[in-house]
Amino acid sequence: MQTCAAFQPPPRLLMGPGPSNVAPSVLQAMSRPLVGHLDPAFVRMMEEIKTMLCQVFLTKNEMTFPVSGTGSAGMEFCFVNLIEPGDEVIIGVNGVFGTRMMDVAERCGAKVTKVEAPWGRIIEPQQIADALKKTSRPKFVAIVHAETSTGALTPVEEISKLTHNAGALMLLDTVTSLAGCPVRIDDWQVDAVYSGTQKCLSCPPGLSPASLSPRALEAATKRKTKVQSWYLDVNLLASYWGQDRVYHHTAPISMNYALHEALRLVLEEGLESRWRRHEQNHLALTAGLKAMGLQIASQEGHQLWQLNAVAVPEGVDEAAVRKRLLTDFNIEVGAGLGPLKGKIWRVGLMGETSSKANVKAFMSALGQILNDSGRKTDAEAALAAAAV
Amino acid sequence: MQTCAAFQPPPRLLMGPGPSNVAPSVLQAMSRPLVGHLDPAFVRMMEEIKTMLCQVFLTKNEMTFPVSGTGSAGMEFCFVNLIEPGDEVIIGVNGVFGTRMMDVAERCGAKVTKVEAPWGRIIEPQQIADALKKTSRPKFVAIVHAETSTGALTPVEEISKLTHNAGALMLLDTVTSLAGCPVRIDDWQVDAVYSGTQKCLSCPPGLSPASLSPRALEAATKRKTKVQSWYLDVNLLASYWGQDRVYHHTAPISMNYALHEALRLVLEEGLESRWRRHEQNHLALTAGLKAMGLQIASQEGHQLWQLNAVAVPEGVDEAAVRKRLLTDFNIEVGAGLGPLKGKIWRVGLMGETSSKANVKAFMSALGQILNDSGRKTDAEAALAAAAV
Repeated sequence: MQTCAAFQPPPRLLMGPGPSNVAPSVLQAMSRPLVGHLDPAFVRMMEEIKTMLCQVFLTKNEMTFPVSGTGSAGMEFCFVNLIEPGDEVIIGVNGVFGTRMMDVAERCGAKVTKVEAPWGRIIEPQQIADALKKTSRPKFVAIVHAETSTGALTPVEEISKLTHNAGALMLLDTVTSLAGCPVRIDDWQVDAVYSGTQKCLSCPPGLSPASLSPRALEAATKRKTKVQSWYLDVNLLASYWGQDRVYHHTAPISMNYALHEALRLVLEEGLESRWRRHEQNHLALTAGLKAMGLQIASQEGHQLWQLNAVAVPEGVDEAAVRKRLLTDFNIEVGAGLGPLKGKIWRVGLMGETSSKANVKAFMSALGQILNDSGRKTDAEAALAAAAV
Repeated sequence: MQTCAAFQPPPRLLMGPGPSNVAPSVLQAMSRPLVGHLDPAFVRMMEEIKTMLCQVFLTKNEMTFPVSGTGSAGMEFCFVNLIEPGDEVIIGVNGVFGTRMMDVAERCGAKVTKVEAPWGRIIEPQQIADALKKTSRPKFVAIVHAETSTGALTPVEEISKLTHNAGALMLLDTVTSLAGCPVRIDDWQVDAVYSGTQKCLSCPPGLSPASLSPRALEAATKRKTKVQSWYLDVNLLASYWGQDRVYHHTAPISMNYALHEALRLVLEEGLESRWRRHEQNHLALTAGLKAMGLQIASQEGHQLWQLNAVAVPEGVDEAAVRKRLLTDFNIEVGAGLGPLKGKIWRVGLMGETSSKANVKAFMSALGQILNDSGRKTDAEAALAAAAV
């Protein structure tokens, strides 16, 4: 049989919507020899992961652990466990991931009330209040905290209060927000939350940290119908990640090694310091872009620190710039999706990637490409404005 | 905040039901820097993975790729895509994984006909023939090729013929069989198959190689209802793993690096050589165990090479022996499950783990433990019988 050569990935500065760059110690963690998924040493590590996840989510929820799949599996985990056929749910849709939530909820047999905002804008509390009034018995309200497809950050606290006043659960997507800006699960009374490892946690993709409040867990355990997914059924997963250690599926051992190390690094830096670093590098980037005559496309006052939707200037070929960033500078940025296709670059400053050096590298490269295309861009002035 | 120490796994000889030991180059592959899931370099690697998976499954099926979850996610992938509510399916149940198939199928709304055999025995073709006669329009027949919970290998070819003659699809679990004994997807006309990475492929757990025949794919694409899982919907996954490269979920990058390298090693060794190695080490182990007065519990003539169900001798404390193997010898073996709990040790010789040196290490350790417990065991004679 014909065999391939070993794969050698090119060196990339990952400034797209994820994965972000990963710290050397996290990469090294994955190269450690395997142990079994029921090994006492692994079980102790699982406990440490749960404890550290609680610290990062700022929650005391016992049911806090990484789902064995990527962020979208975490989304599905929350939805399949909470929804029984016929349940009414309210979903905020202002980008790709709200749209995905709709799709997942409908596959669970939910009656979905869609609350829409234009892509790039946030979901307003008043919209949720109106939807709650029109819904007889809402099971939950779901919103995407940081919309990776648009760069907008929807505030959670007021929406969560309205939701609880109506007797519903609050479900939150924190795939891109967690560890890159404030996420306060208990303070905000979020009942079901999932995230991804490959964004601001700077761990490779493959796990989805999730957490259920006691109220959400009760809804999942007292349901009348079986959860439609065996793989994601929290009633079964609880026996493995809880004290019983009953075999369910074989946990992705090496991915959990990586998550353990990534969480350690987050907590060593400190959550608040990490948020501040993300904020500062975002401010540096936007100041520099402004000096280059470029704008952030998402709603003023609600722009993500970790994912910057840079408006493509009139007359510039979006895809050509992105391609040259990759081929000539080894810098990956993301394309716009849906209605934003061709209109924005999605420039991630997530986790390890969020540094002054990377802001500088990106702006220098972009300045050069724009200049080469005949557009006059003063990259030096931009770097001075960004103070990088 | 309090931070944990970095995790240092103890060195283990993994002789349980999986994960198996992983080759150094596979571990190293995971420590390589990340690239994006839409990076041209990654996309080329995805193509190589698909090609190599086809070579390992011995299939030409275009729809052959790794599902982004562990083996059980692969099981769910096959079931959710093929089953529409009300469909009739026939499932062979002779251990944990057949039982799991029943559970998954019922969650998909299938009408399940259960074909049972005692744990440790195979599913007989005649049983399937009888079930097919009693079923009006069977969608598929599903069996577990290598039952990891019992050590029995059910022959597929005749069952597959009966299945196709009745107009049904053949679904096969090859989690433990793939790359450890003959698995011939096209020759056997298997329509839907899934496996795991952490068994005879000797790659860490986290992905589930799967393959659908054109007939199975047609059933999935022409279904009237939406697939109940968004994460596992082949109609969406096909756009990412096919030529379109449409973003679906973020593929577990590092796990795919590992799988690429593990598949390379399998093909470098050669499939037939690898099967032979598994057979030879199984024969060495069983000869040695026989000299020690120990037996394999699963059905004569259908015993797995890669997973040996060793009957616990009368008067021996199963759990105590297993615990001492782990704590004093760093050897992990598996416990019995369900009706076999306390009655067998599950001794894996999978992938990297399948070597003469490991057979010897296990028999020496077991001999010593049994001797220490007062049982006279001639480990030297056993090693001579095993010729290791």
